Amino acid sequence: MDVRFLLLTAISLCLATPSGADEGFWTFNNFPAEKVQKAYGFLPTPEWLDHVRLSSLRTPGRCSASFVSDQGLVLTNHHCVVDCLEELSTGGKDYLASPFVAMKPDEELRCPRIEMNQLTSITDVTEEIRTATKDLSGEALKTALKAEMTRLERACATSETVRCDVVELYRGGKYDLYQYRRYQDVRLVFAPEYAAGQFGGDPDNFSFPRFGFDVALYRIYEDGRPIDSRANFFRWSNTGGVDGEPTFISGHPGRTSRSMTVDQLQFERDARLPFYLGYYAEERGLLTEFRRKGKDESLFAGPDLFYAENALKLIKGQFATILSQSVTDQKEHEERALRREVEKNPATKEFADAWPIVAKAVERYRSLFLPYVIVEGAALRPPPGFQSQLASFAKMLVRASEELKKPDGQRLREYTDANLPALKQALFSAAPIHRELEVEELTFGLGKVREELGADDGFVRRLFGGKSPEELARALVETSTLAKLEERQRLFDGGREAIKASKDPMIAVMRDVVDPFARRIRDDYETNVEAPFAKGGEKIARAVFALHGLSVYPDATGSLRLSYGQMKGPAESDGGGPAVTTIGGAFARSTGRDPFALPPSWLEAKDRLNLDLPLNMATTNEVVGGNSGSPMLNKKAELIGLVFDSNLSGRGNAYLQRPEDRTVAVDSACILEVLSKVYKAERIVKEVRAANGG
Amino acid sequence: MDVRFLLLTAISLCLATPSGADEGFWTFNNFPAEKVQKAYGFLPTPEWLDHVRLSSLRTPGRCSASFVSDQGLVLTNHHCVVDCLEELSTGGKDYLASPFVAMKPDEELRCPRIEMNQLTSITDVTEEIRTATKDLSGEALKTALKAEMTRLERACATSETVRCDVVELYRGGKYDLYQYRRYQDVRLVFAPEYAAGQFGGDPDNFSFPRFGFDVALYRIYEDGRPIDSRANFFRWSNTGGVDGEPTFISGHPGRTSRSMTVDQLQFERDARLPFYLGYYAEERGLLTEFRRKGKDESLFAGPDLFYAENALKLIKGQFATILSQSVTDQKEHEERALRREVEKNPATKEFADAWPIVAKAVERYRSLFLPYVIVEGAALRPPPGFQSQLASFAKMLVRASEELKKPDGQRLREYTDANLPALKQALFSAAPIHRELEVEELTFGLGKVREELGADDGFVRRLFGGKSPEELARALVETSTLAKLEERQRLFDGGREAIKASKDPMIAVMRDVVDPFARRIRDDYETNVEAPFAKGGEKIARAVFALHGLSVYPDATGSLRLSYGQMKGPAESDGGGPAVTTIGGAFARSTGRDPFALPPSWLEAKDRLNLDLPLNMATTNEVVGGNSGSPMLNKKAELIGLVFDSNLSGRGNAYLQRPEDRTVAVDSACILEVLSKVYKAERIVKEVRAANGG
Repeated sequence: MDVRFLLLTAISLCLATPSGADEGFWTFNNFPAEKVQKAYGFLPTPEWLDHVRLSSLRTPGRCSASFVSDQGLVLTNHHCVVDCLEELSTGGKDYLASPFVAMKPDEELRCPRIEMNQLTSITDVTEEIRTATKDLSGEALKTALKAEMTRLERACATSETVRCDVVELYRGGKYDLYQYRRYQDVRLVFAPEYAAGQFGGDPDNFSFPRFGFDVALYRIYEDGRPIDSRANFFRWSNTGGVDGEPTFISGHPGRTSRSMTVDQLQFERDARLPFYLGYYAEERGLLTEFRRKGKDESLFAGPDLFYAENALKLIKGQFATILSQSVTDQKEHEERALRREVEKNPATKEFADAWPIVAKAVERYRSLFLPYVIVEGAALRPPPGFQSQLASFAKMLVRASEELKKPDGQRLREYTDANLPALKQALFSAAPIHRELEVEELTFGLGKVREELGADDGFVRRLFGGKSPEELARALVETSTLAKLEERQRLFDGGREAIKASKDPMIAVMRDVVDPFARRIRDDYETNVEAPFAKGGEKIARAVFALHGLSVYPDATGSLRLSYGQMKGPAESDGGGPAVTTIGGAFARSTGRDPFALPPSWLEAKDRLNLDLPLNMATTNEVVGGNSGSPMLNKKAELIGLVFDSNLSGRGNAYLQRPEDRTVAVDSACILEVLSKVYKAERIVKEVRAANGG
Repeated sequence: MDVRFLLLTAISLCLATPSGADEGFWTFNNFPAEKVQKAYGFLPTPEWLDHVRLSSLRTPGRCSASFVSDQGLVLTNHHCVVDCLEELSTGGKDYLASPFVAMKPDEELRCPRIEMNQLTSITDVTEEIRTATKDLSGEALKTALKAEMTRLERACATSETVRCDVVELYRGGKYDLYQYRRYQDVRLVFAPEYAAGQFGGDPDNFSFPRFGFDVALYRIYEDGRPIDSRANFFRWSNTGGVDGEPTFISGHPGRTSRSMTVDQLQFERDARLPFYLGYYAEERGLLTEFRRKGKDESLFAGPDLFYAENALKLIKGQFATILSQSVTDQKEHEERALRREVEKNPATKEFADAWPIVAKAVERYRSLFLPYVIVEGAALRPPPGFQSQLASFAKMLVRASEELKKPDGQRLREYTDANLPALKQALFSAAPIHRELEVEELTFGLGKVREELGADDGFVRRLFGGKSPEELARALVETSTLAKLEERQRLFDGGREAIKASKDPMIAVMRDVVDPFARRIRDDYETNVEAPFAKGGEKIARAVFALHGLSVYPDATGSLRLSYGQMKGPAESDGGGPAVTTIGGAFARSTGRDPFALPPSWLEAKDRLNLDLPLNMATTNEVVGGNSGSPMLNKKAELIGLVFDSNLSGRGNAYLQRPEDRTVAVDSACILEVLSKVYKAERIVKEVRAANGG
């Protein structure tokens, strides 16, 4: 972690471009209120910050959201509920083609795989972690760190409705314990048709001017009834965004890499980004054609294609940024300057070996990257080589049967007691399984395993046993019984004996071939890549703290952050223009052809709509993946917009912020108008109006 | 062009790795015979070089080949004849699934789109070009250069059976006029099944050890009879490759970029390679799924998928090479050293502005690249945005109607009189058109036009007129009459009036929308990118000639080159091992599943085959795309192998050669064995044996 980069960047941007974007994904316990006051004449108070924090929500690893009524009504993006819409689209109803409007309370439908978290407290636990890991390194450091994090989380998570995460900030420079109220009964209230929610589709994705109605509403239930959220929800602004006034975004940016060392950035450029560019491009081609097979295929594969296209366009932007010579030069210059400073200052000299530590781990990562990312990947998610729900279930069941026998602190992180609810939710989802799509995606993934690891690799030979990727995928998917929820429950409850006795081909291949290999690679990665990255990051962070104090923000980690900015149209270099578009603009852009076809509901309502109302808006705030669904607020903490994207330039902001970056949001002004006049959702509009005092 | 890089590289490789690869794509009129003598104790004489040159062949812009009998029998790769096999596969016969063996002379079938060229003479025309372009720059330089090249080619091409190309060598440092004997009646004699020719498929592509039988045979006809080739053909070696003896490859490497400046290399890295990586990956996914639709789709789309997969794997290797920090460092170091030398030497000081000239053109290219490559692309080939035979016909017809009215020297290069035969062969090919594949590929291409140029671009708006890519593709393909050869002939003969009057939708869109835009972009590219690249390249070349003479080879340009080396197994860093594989090895590798399934013909013949015979071989020679089908020769100019690939490391040799690069060839020893015992092609085996003295 090299927060000095960020500081320098921020300063240089401020000097060079006083009207550029405002920088920073700030934590709520280190928000630069004075900076905001200086720039915008408004000082956010601790009470203001608490209210914003408690009105904000997240769906872990996915999206942001917020309370917008006193009865548990939650605002988020249409693209955050697409998976749920697909799951609910059974029995002839297609909620991607038609809007979903719960006209009556009992029409609100549960989304099986969605949970909501509300951040109730933040506690600094850096001292506890430092004490537990003092003088340790390598395997011992890793084990002690994991055990202490698990201990802290267990002590904090006192019931099934509490979730606790130790959040590593500043790449190990600081550790905070985040305690969340967890809600697991989340029901869909409203979603527009795909054609309205994703108007402009992939061509307009990551751009402004923009004309999307990327809006959806949930409601949180407990004990079968809507919860009482009157203590903390966002009021609806009467005025919308106002020029020159500050704008705030409270949400959960997923991951930035601004404090990466130059060696880590080179790894991104040489290994990670080219791999994903090719992977998502090919998956896009495959799924585009798969969807042409028929109505069912089109419906099932829609969300996967949306995900692949979005990822592809994002990665292209990240890659373009990191390949740009001026970015490379800037990063190299900043790192050289910081290293000189650290070396010549007696207080920080001991941290000077941080960069060689990271460089050595990058070398190791180069040989581990492909097997690690393709076979193991992120926790509880299908990795690129095993893009299959059934494979994912099998892996969770096999691992759970081993891990749950161990003491809590020695388990893989995603199997600790604190993480059990998330595991169970993923494993026991009632979402339907589409076998042909499973075969399609698994064939593709297995092809990548063979392609990237090589047909002569020992693991590949054991895995395929002479079969082709398609044969193997069919053999695993077609006779697996894991699509049945009760079978997964039986295997989970049966533990090691049940797994050992299972003849299910997906369980067998995970148990006997994939998991032993994946565990070995993961252990190698955690010991020889992750641990030294953390060690180096911590050293750099401590050096920067010693030199410059805590005046900087940490890289995004999926935890709640607050960014500030102001309404502003595109930079001159991006063509300039106003900061808002109008409802009328969407009609002007509609060609009648997907993805530029406004749906019948809008066409029919045209005469009733106020076409001059703002539809989308742009601001200088910072956002990144995970911020989707974040509320855009004014200084009264009123809702003025719903964040759903950045512009093209903003795609590169994992690595650094640039003055032309913009956040793109649905303007709050149009939301009630459209809900009422297009979707006739008067019940919801009334609820919001009543919560705002009528 | 910076040949100094090459020299330095060669020297340092020689010093560092005496057992590494041998370097260079040498021209026949500047072959380093003494170097070969020094390394291998054999001095190629002028007569030896003439015989090798005249026994070598090319199919322009595609593959290499050679005469292997006195009756016009030609040896090349299976993958060079795949398009022809697909074209011949009508009426229920599928020559990708089954082998093609002409058991009798009258079963030899004409390949409609193949021509063969034999290089009959090389003349230095540098002086003529310099005189014609003296003191000119910009538009005037471009025009004068084109006119003089056309004049020289016209004067040289005295009949339809003579083709002449002015070849720009050393990026404009030298110009040679290559005169070819052209053969346009090329018939297929033998091709194995796809399963044998491409055994190992994409997983084994670009690798060694290898087990492919990538072999095919043509015969050249004239006036309905096989030509007499007794004067120049390669004899078959009795011994095959011998350790320590030199090996030679005579063929047509298509394009290398070793003399690019650092700015040009950065452009490759930032713009060209990422674009093609994403493009081919997506096309691969699309076509993989398209082929699953049915038997016809699988057959039609096979060659396109093969091309996309091969291109993708190649580009991944090129990208990995150019992203590698050690390559970047080496290129930068070499350029700095050369520039210093050029600046301080009075004789070369005038050339020091070469690098700024190139750098400025690179900047211009950054903004022109996407429209240029997507809409215009290479001459007479469908560009990425218009992947369609019909679109390609329309473009040729529209352009021909304009260009052929102009004086020869003012035409676009591919429409000069000298190039008319190639134009006509492409335009009047009798190959069948598959409308659904046309729609598929054109939809994909049009999607890329919109995606990369932007939905709001003026050209994009005019082109689409509110339609979706698929709608537009269908509208253009489904009612076009250009699939009919006689209609193309009518429009070609009718010239401008016929084109003007045509209501064919493909003609109309090319005439009214695409061609005006493409011409503007091409003109911009030629004036502001190509011309300064040539100017800068020429200056660097002249500086290097002044400093170091002609002791270096030029970048590959698709013209005939000779490389030397020796048999050698993989480098230790690539796992080591022997330089040859055996026929038995192919049986051991066969799993029965595509692409590792030996076909029934081989399985049935197993007991008759000598399994210990070499199947494939590796040498230290240099090859690059275009070398496919090249003969591998010993010092007696006897055939010891048939080049079909490089190893994984060799994919990066567009930019530089590395000691671990290897060329992969089918060993000549197995070819007659397999032709006889697997394919029962005794007629051909006898012909070859007779030509070799029985």
